[in-house]
Amino acid sequence: MSHISADLAQAAPFSTDDKEAVYKAIFTRRDVRSQFLPRAIPYEILNRLLLAAHHAPSVGFMQPWNFIVIKSQETRAKVKSAFEKANAEAAALFKDERKALYSAIKLEGIKQAPINLCITCDRERGGPVILGRTHNHDTDLYSTVCAVQNLWLAARAEGLGVGWVSIFNETDIRDILNLPKHVVPVAYLCLGYVDELYLKPELEAKGWSSRLDLQSLVFHDRWGENHGESV
Amino acid sequence: MSHISADLAQAAPFSTDDKEAVYKAIFTRRDVRSQFLPRAIPYEILNRLLLAAHHAPSVGFMQPWNFIVIKSQETRAKVKSAFEKANAEAAALFKDERKALYSAIKLEGIKQAPINLCITCDRERGGPVILGRTHNHDTDLYSTVCAVQNLWLAARAEGLGVGWVSIFNETDIRDILNLPKHVVPVAYLCLGYVDELYLKPELEAKGWSSRLDLQSLVFHDRWGENHGESV
Repeated sequence: MSHISADLAQAAPFSTDDKEAVYKAIFTRRDVRSQFLPRAIPYEILNRLLLAAHHAPSVGFMQPWNFIVIKSQETRAKVKSAFEKANAEAAALFKDERKALYSAIKLEGIKQAPINLCITCDRERGGPVILGRTHNHDTDLYSTVCAVQNLWLAARAEGLGVGWVSIFNETDIRDILNLPKHVVPVAYLCLGYVDELYLKPELEAKGWSSRLDLQSLVFHDRWGENHGESV
Repeated sequence: MSHISADLAQAAPFSTDDKEAVYKAIFTRRDVRSQFLPRAIPYEILNRLLLAAHHAPSVGFMQPWNFIVIKSQETRAKVKSAFEKANAEAAALFKDERKALYSAIKLEGIKQAPINLCITCDRERGGPVILGRTHNHDTDLYSTVCAVQNLWLAARAEGLGVGWVSIFNETDIRDILNLPKHVVPVAYLCLGYVDELYLKPELEAKGWSSRLDLQSLVFHDRWGENHGESV
């Protein structure tokens, strides 16, 4: 194809089977807290997941992420304590039945999962002026979240579950992992093989909340304009 | 399997072919600015992409996103003007050769792409206390970014390109789309069919910057501990 430059390649839609595989990863991915198996994660598999994360889009090709692979039992015990302290503070914010339900839902697999992974954002990577980040300084954080989601979907395909634990006082995680000031712990993840996953999100299955109707979330041309169909 | 509750289902790794499809979406996804074709995006396809976005993980199952589908030429002309104003400000921050290269790189397909899509985050959805968001208030923004990345990967499988335009003064986008104060425009996306995609990220192909070595980004148990292999 003479009109295609050396840097461009043809890009067709995926086959029906391949499309279905991508949607299967998207629709069956779950936030896992209780289903982790103790089975070790082979080096090659973890490496492939990190490579998937590393191929996320990033603002100005900044690649602001680092990956801290945590296997140390001592470190995980400290992280678990930090979670427990924050989770007690969190539980106190809910009332009555919600408080009882909150306390009954397991929210982390820090010690059960064979690997914990902290994905961080280095806010100074690539210097002070980054293409595409000049008007929204937080796009580096957004890039880091794209890396998390890439890893999460790749993990689903590999038969691994991922749980994102966000109930921490950030200073505790910073201290435990020795993070420099300019580095933000965006996601603290638990990773492990699973034999079972919830059919629906666990918070839906357990009656915490329901999936919203997509059509109610779609607007046309400006906020609030809803045509009564989803697109 | 009697030990599986009604809410859980068996979750095996994907077949080799299905795994490869997921990785193909991850590794061949690109940020598209110039390859958009004018071909209309069918209703069912756009709906499927939005459904993929809507199945992103969200903190406390908050689902803080909305999707503003922008087809109006008038609205897009205003957005394009907002981009041009901000981009001139951005170009002024680069010097000499970098400035020349910056100005030579096309950074948006606002008018060329048949659909623009703003994915927003409603910071008040679900009330003031959200499970999992009690200690990091920005996890709702992170959830919204996960929705963006789901859509981006699904689009790749459908043969559609996506470009994320971030060079705006946020107030301009708020005014044009009439966003309420509590709603943040997280991502402004251009969507359209493509026949060609860059083999590498466009900023790498054009010499703006290079992919970092994954091994240099991986630490063990704490920041700075690098064993010289990636995991």
